[in-house]
Amino acid sequence: MISALRLRHGISRILLDWSERLGEEFCMTPELQDLFTFLRFPSISTDSRHTADVRACAQWLITKLSGMGLAVELHETARHPIVVARNEHRVDCKTVLIYGHYDVQPVDPLALWQNPPFEPEIREGKIWARGATDNKGQMLAHILGVEKTLREQGELPVNLIFLFEGEEEIGSPNLAPFLREHREALRCDVIAVSDTGMVAAGVPTMGYGLRGIACAEVTLRGPKGDLHSGIYGGAVANPATAIARLVASLHDSNGKILVDGFYDDVRPLEAWEREMWQQIPGVADADFLAVTGSPSVFGEEGYSSAERVWARPTAEVNGIGGGYQGEGSKTVLPAEAFAKFSFRLVPDQDPKDILEKVRAHFEKHCPAGVSIDIYIGHDGKPYLADPHSADGKAAQRALTAAFGSEPVLIREGGSIPIIQSFREILGADTLLLGLALPDCQIHAPNENFPVANFEAGILLNQHLLRELGA
Amino acid sequence: MISALRLRHGISRILLDWSERLGEEFCMTPELQDLFTFLRFPSISTDSRHTADVRACAQWLITKLSGMGLAVELHETARHPIVVARNEHRVDCKTVLIYGHYDVQPVDPLALWQNPPFEPEIREGKIWARGATDNKGQMLAHILGVEKTLREQGELPVNLIFLFEGEEEIGSPNLAPFLREHREALRCDVIAVSDTGMVAAGVPTMGYGLRGIACAEVTLRGPKGDLHSGIYGGAVANPATAIARLVASLHDSNGKILVDGFYDDVRPLEAWEREMWQQIPGVADADFLAVTGSPSVFGEEGYSSAERVWARPTAEVNGIGGGYQGEGSKTVLPAEAFAKFSFRLVPDQDPKDILEKVRAHFEKHCPAGVSIDIYIGHDGKPYLADPHSADGKAAQRALTAAFGSEPVLIREGGSIPIIQSFREILGADTLLLGLALPDCQIHAPNENFPVANFEAGILLNQHLLRELGA
Repeated sequence: MISALRLRHGISRILLDWSERLGEEFCMTPELQDLFTFLRFPSISTDSRHTADVRACAQWLITKLSGMGLAVELHETARHPIVVARNEHRVDCKTVLIYGHYDVQPVDPLALWQNPPFEPEIREGKIWARGATDNKGQMLAHILGVEKTLREQGELPVNLIFLFEGEEEIGSPNLAPFLREHREALRCDVIAVSDTGMVAAGVPTMGYGLRGIACAEVTLRGPKGDLHSGIYGGAVANPATAIARLVASLHDSNGKILVDGFYDDVRPLEAWEREMWQQIPGVADADFLAVTGSPSVFGEEGYSSAERVWARPTAEVNGIGGGYQGEGSKTVLPAEAFAKFSFRLVPDQDPKDILEKVRAHFEKHCPAGVSIDIYIGHDGKPYLADPHSADGKAAQRALTAAFGSEPVLIREGGSIPIIQSFREILGADTLLLGLALPDCQIHAPNENFPVANFEAGILLNQHLLRELGA
Repeated sequence: MISALRLRHGISRILLDWSERLGEEFCMTPELQDLFTFLRFPSISTDSRHTADVRACAQWLITKLSGMGLAVELHETARHPIVVARNEHRVDCKTVLIYGHYDVQPVDPLALWQNPPFEPEIREGKIWARGATDNKGQMLAHILGVEKTLREQGELPVNLIFLFEGEEEIGSPNLAPFLREHREALRCDVIAVSDTGMVAAGVPTMGYGLRGIACAEVTLRGPKGDLHSGIYGGAVANPATAIARLVASLHDSNGKILVDGFYDDVRPLEAWEREMWQQIPGVADADFLAVTGSPSVFGEEGYSSAERVWARPTAEVNGIGGGYQGEGSKTVLPAEAFAKFSFRLVPDQDPKDILEKVRAHFEKHCPAGVSIDIYIGHDGKPYLADPHSADGKAAQRALTAAFGSEPVLIREGGSIPIIQSFREILGADTLLLGLALPDCQIHAPNENFPVANFEAGILLNQHLLRELGA
């Protein structure tokens, strides 16, 4: 994909850096040493066995930020702590809040990792570890950009607030309450977040929209224990068959969602978006196939792949299970089966409304002969902002300076519910300055982050502070 | 259920024994000591980590049978050995082959067991262990019935052949070839097997039919690795959704199987069977609900629960899986998903024919956007015999003598493919003299076998040898 991009975009500085350094032994700079230390904390927020690791990671952050001369606070929450740091604020400066998260996703299936997920390695110009991209690598680029600016200029051109949480991967349950409680202390003019993607290597990218999310889990129960499928099969319902029938009720064969009213509040794409996105490299069907390895693209009729991901909602099964999972065969009729769902939502869908519609759908379509247990999980609203505001243009100049080419403007398929909370509670819009590449494998085995993106990210933050403070 | 049975059947000797002994400390008789030793071998045939345990179990059998004065042979197969033992045969005696299997099912989910599955315990008058019922308890009742007869009478009234295999739970792949190779040495007049069920405690039961089985596993593959469901969700097919849609294509909402031609060769129930089965205790809908704990019975319209299990075919999901299986949520779009199937077949369905029809169904109904991999597993034909033959009547007299009441005549929902092979290769029919109760939890956690059934089984075998040899 890189050579195609060169033809279309010229050879950007980042690509030159990249090709010059392929095969090079990377020097363990102080910046990379910091990142490796940060990555070694197994700060998996969803898994209660890692609670102490999440806290240890927060403690390391406090030490790092204090050492830069910032005033640092650790705030307890019901689960994992929030870290806030700031410089000395001046009345004549713009206030910029930079947000990141130091928690990470689980790592299973562990057997598919090429190196242990919390023992980072550099291979092929990339840092391989859980969290390398999402979000520790991008978050540390913020921190080190600030550190370099402070070292070079003695002070920052803006009032800075760092806000780092440890619960993003479980839906940030305690961050919105924290924002409400500390609304005055966190008051700011604009927010910057690097937790999204670049459309392709070397193509700086600014996001102005995010999908929302709504999660649910369904367990269907039949017999009180696993049964012999010969002795009882045919006389009682099989929960594994039933969960399959329930999941199958969610879509038609073309991938359209069949939950009553699901599309009622979906805002249609605007003509300029559809036109711009056709020009953006790295998001054609062929790119999706190359990156995902899927045998074909598949989705709602009448939309391109980019449109399906950035501007159309989904009903995705994240996990399904029931009965025998091991080698060979075991002829049981399982006692229960489950499915875990996440729904990606777009403006102007409301997660609570969607979850009520989904619950009604599950109850209506639950097959006979089993009992149903519906667990409603976390949710977050979709987000849409104006990419042509003054701060938006400042961010685009910083991207151009850091990467050597003009950024493209996109929405994102992922969800950062807190961005919507920032708008609602703090009244500020967010600049989405993502550094992730399509093959960074976030949330999957072998997550990785190009060293070049890490270094460009540090540079981007130096320019961003200058442009916003100008 | 026991008190209801007393009203309908009188108080059989076995029930009196039972109620007198509730709460009693069971004396560890030599017979129970033998059974405990037999049960301690974790002879799980499907799991290659237990290959040595299966062999050790066979070695113990050889020692036991040799000690009884029988001539014993161990025959190697491609996987687990076959043990054959016989007395000195005489030309004027009927030859009886007794078959059993010393291998057992896997034990997961281990956390649901009340005692470790290979550390047998007696509680509530039952022996709790993997294999207690299926088949070690029932198989040892054969052996100990023979041992007692030999001890009391010095010789057996029949020519005996014991045939014990270690691969029943993986579909007996090497037994039919073994029968063909040793057809002459295994020639017999009738075969006895205790690997089926009694309809209820204290109700002696003779089976004359078995369902066949055909197994298959399907894996659907989409992306090359798990994907972030936000960044890619909507643009590529989700294998977990796809496997659910494929599974859902197998049945209509009433449980009727939709595979083309699936019912073509199903032999209708005869009027006398439907009439007799209505009278049999322990197989009413209420009994199925009590034993299984399912919220309701469920199955093909127009048939009773007993008819659905004994004389109608099924398409059962034994396991389904894909994506995140752990605690909490992980918003992945999984790379692959699988389902393991077993089809229970009735006369005159042919397993190979059904598996071809199933393969065609899966290929036809495979959703778009994923690749399909179909693995065809083991199979066995259904079986039906005449319960009113001379040997059948002899077996019914032995059951009456051992249990103190007349046996009921049923088919079985389970599958013992080898019974069909016995008929085809050795030309002999099989007496199905099952001792399992509906709540023995075979193939499931907390498998158990009543001590009373174990003792009645030993007595049954003594009577059986006498009746068949008369």
